[in-house]
Amino acid sequence: MGPIPPGFASEEGMLLIGGVGVGALAHEAGGTPFFAYDAGLIDARLAALRAAMPDALDIHYAIKANPFAPLLAHMAGRVDGFDIASGGEMEMALAAGMAADRISFAGPGKRDAELEGAIRAAVTLNVESEGEAERALAIANRLGKAPRLAVRVNPDFDLKGSGMHMGGRASPFGVDADRAAPLASRLIDAGAIWRGWHIFAGSQALDSEAIIAAQDATVALAERLTEAVGASPPLVNLGGGLGVPYFPGDEPVDLPNIGAALAERLERRSASLKDCRFAIELGRYLVAEAGVYLTRLVDVKQSRGERFAIVDGGLHHQLAASGNFGTVVRRNYPLAIANRIGEPLSPEPVTIVGCLCTPLDRLGDRLALPEVAVGDLVAIFLAGAYGASASPERFLGHEQAPELLVRMDEA
Amino acid sequence: MGPIPPGFASEEGMLLIGGVGVGALAHEAGGTPFFAYDAGLIDARLAALRAAMPDALDIHYAIKANPFAPLLAHMAGRVDGFDIASGGEMEMALAAGMAADRISFAGPGKRDAELEGAIRAAVTLNVESEGEAERALAIANRLGKAPRLAVRVNPDFDLKGSGMHMGGRASPFGVDADRAAPLASRLIDAGAIWRGWHIFAGSQALDSEAIIAAQDATVALAERLTEAVGASPPLVNLGGGLGVPYFPGDEPVDLPNIGAALAERLERRSASLKDCRFAIELGRYLVAEAGVYLTRLVDVKQSRGERFAIVDGGLHHQLAASGNFGTVVRRNYPLAIANRIGEPLSPEPVTIVGCLCTPLDRLGDRLALPEVAVGDLVAIFLAGAYGASASPERFLGHEQAPELLVRMDEA
Repeated sequence: MGPIPPGFASEEGMLLIGGVGVGALAHEAGGTPFFAYDAGLIDARLAALRAAMPDALDIHYAIKANPFAPLLAHMAGRVDGFDIASGGEMEMALAAGMAADRISFAGPGKRDAELEGAIRAAVTLNVESEGEAERALAIANRLGKAPRLAVRVNPDFDLKGSGMHMGGRASPFGVDADRAAPLASRLIDAGAIWRGWHIFAGSQALDSEAIIAAQDATVALAERLTEAVGASPPLVNLGGGLGVPYFPGDEPVDLPNIGAALAERLERRSASLKDCRFAIELGRYLVAEAGVYLTRLVDVKQSRGERFAIVDGGLHHQLAASGNFGTVVRRNYPLAIANRIGEPLSPEPVTIVGCLCTPLDRLGDRLALPEVAVGDLVAIFLAGAYGASASPERFLGHEQAPELLVRMDEA
Repeated sequence: MGPIPPGFASEEGMLLIGGVGVGALAHEAGGTPFFAYDAGLIDARLAALRAAMPDALDIHYAIKANPFAPLLAHMAGRVDGFDIASGGEMEMALAAGMAADRISFAGPGKRDAELEGAIRAAVTLNVESEGEAERALAIANRLGKAPRLAVRVNPDFDLKGSGMHMGGRASPFGVDADRAAPLASRLIDAGAIWRGWHIFAGSQALDSEAIIAAQDATVALAERLTEAVGASPPLVNLGGGLGVPYFPGDEPVDLPNIGAALAERLERRSASLKDCRFAIELGRYLVAEAGVYLTRLVDVKQSRGERFAIVDGGLHHQLAASGNFGTVVRRNYPLAIANRIGEPLSPEPVTIVGCLCTPLDRLGDRLALPEVAVGDLVAIFLAGAYGASASPERFLGHEQAPELLVRMDEA
């Protein structure tokens, strides 16, 4: 399995999250399974980003990664903006205390009601097509309100090695780069409040040089588009891209190197972008490693020479860890027996499966772990992003898993 | 894409479900997206099964396939039992009106509270391991109530060509065949009400000969186990296995042939099983083809020479159709423009994507469809099983999709 993210300690064999033992957290959650997010680790990640990145760069949180309300409220005071992808997420973002003028709404399938909601709330719409632009302008006209509009661009390049490719190909996201400037001119001419460019080339990349190259190409594209339009944008959203290590051989991105390269690139940006802000839009990178899914062993059994440990959680809460969400080959997420940290490993491997009555519910294949027993707590790491909200929680009639945001200052 | 299931008609170009136009159904649902299930098609499938299968065979519904409450209530009066996989499903099954003595509870990760709930309700537990058996007996002892117990067996053979292999290998499900008889004897000796064998070799198979072979092997295994125990079981659950066609080249199973072979096999069963009933446990086969997911086009756009149509639904409601649930290579589910049935096909293919802001949300790749326009209704077939309840419905902050059971007699 891949590396356990840094920042987790233990005490007398018990995993600590935010300084609190997971046994106590299980009590707090009312039992297992549950998710715990360490606010201190999120803050440390943000501090590292702030230290590495140039001052001209805002840090946005893409709330789709984890929209747990207390976590959103925590983030609202710490990042420069929220990026959202639905009317429902807009409600969450506003409820968390983020100012409307720091929220931008992307997504290829915005309904009229969502466009209207965003225009009424003065949230920026990242327009994804000419058709959507005309719908937004018509709604704004009907409301008698100037809409805040940016253009999402389908870039003519890719982020190499990204887990999700979002550029350099035919795509439902944004307008092709060669049609972006005319669309922006149309919006400006129609009286929209021009908010700038949204250029997202890919996500979950671990190759720092590829990220640097994509950011360079993104700034260059924004320069070209801005010159074609002849109006300076207030903001260029450079997209995300920074990945986190999940699997064996994965290495963290080189944040200082990426930050230095971006600073250098922004230093020499064209005059047309001199007065504009830039933003990086991060979801997974901010929260994935801070989260842990905790579940309890309910049975240990042998079958045809293999040992299985069955937990009271499963893919209904953590679909991605089962390898059934956006992955071709399932690999083991990092996992630990949370009440046996530091114990010697058993020579006999154990396969951890979820409680669902389906062979898909496999959480760890043939792992080297300490000797396990019914009642043990199993920690599955990298559960802070695309976990609770990205899993089929009604599947097989189980309960939703509680979530806890663990803050040191409350511990 | 694969074949549209039989039984759907259209009127003036509009798809009918249960005799009702999908436009009217969308109105009934309060808008799009929504699921509609044709109760008449479910009834027809059940009638075909009853006609093909021997009288000694009960037909059970595995409610995990679709636990929509009105559908469960409909099924409760039509099948001989419900198979469940959690305490939550037990509540649903009882609420639907199914008698407790016709409910059996399988699943490798049953918690003590779930065991206790089933014993109190006199629901049969399909015991999955020696450890679970001892926990169930201890709880029953504490409650002073004889538990209804069956043994789930991990068969020593496989259902060839099944979408989900559940036999012939190390497995978290059931006890290995060579340990099943001693476990049954232990349960009987401990005073449990002996309910019999649960033998599930695989699911979603389309090869009728492989299904016949697996059923033959399952009966033979039940004979051997019964003789080893020396006590006749009231029921042998032969598992499921019958698949439905999703993709190009898939052919429906040959139900009459399977039924005839099973009748012949049961005719010549050993004396030890002469007085026992048999059951087949079906989920997908009963309901998948009766369900349709309906969603509406919100944008049509070009990108780099490819045409995309974006709908207001997506993988948050129908994860399996996006190819992200238990499939290695995504293939297109059958799909139609529901308000343009019978219109000539456009020479230009169109790719249908969901509204979520992720490249995973792809519902139909480069399909030959009629010329599409914003506002059109898109029908994605085979949505009756593992759809609404098996999708990450909170993902990206969207609403849950309403579900409708459409009954002819109400139309």
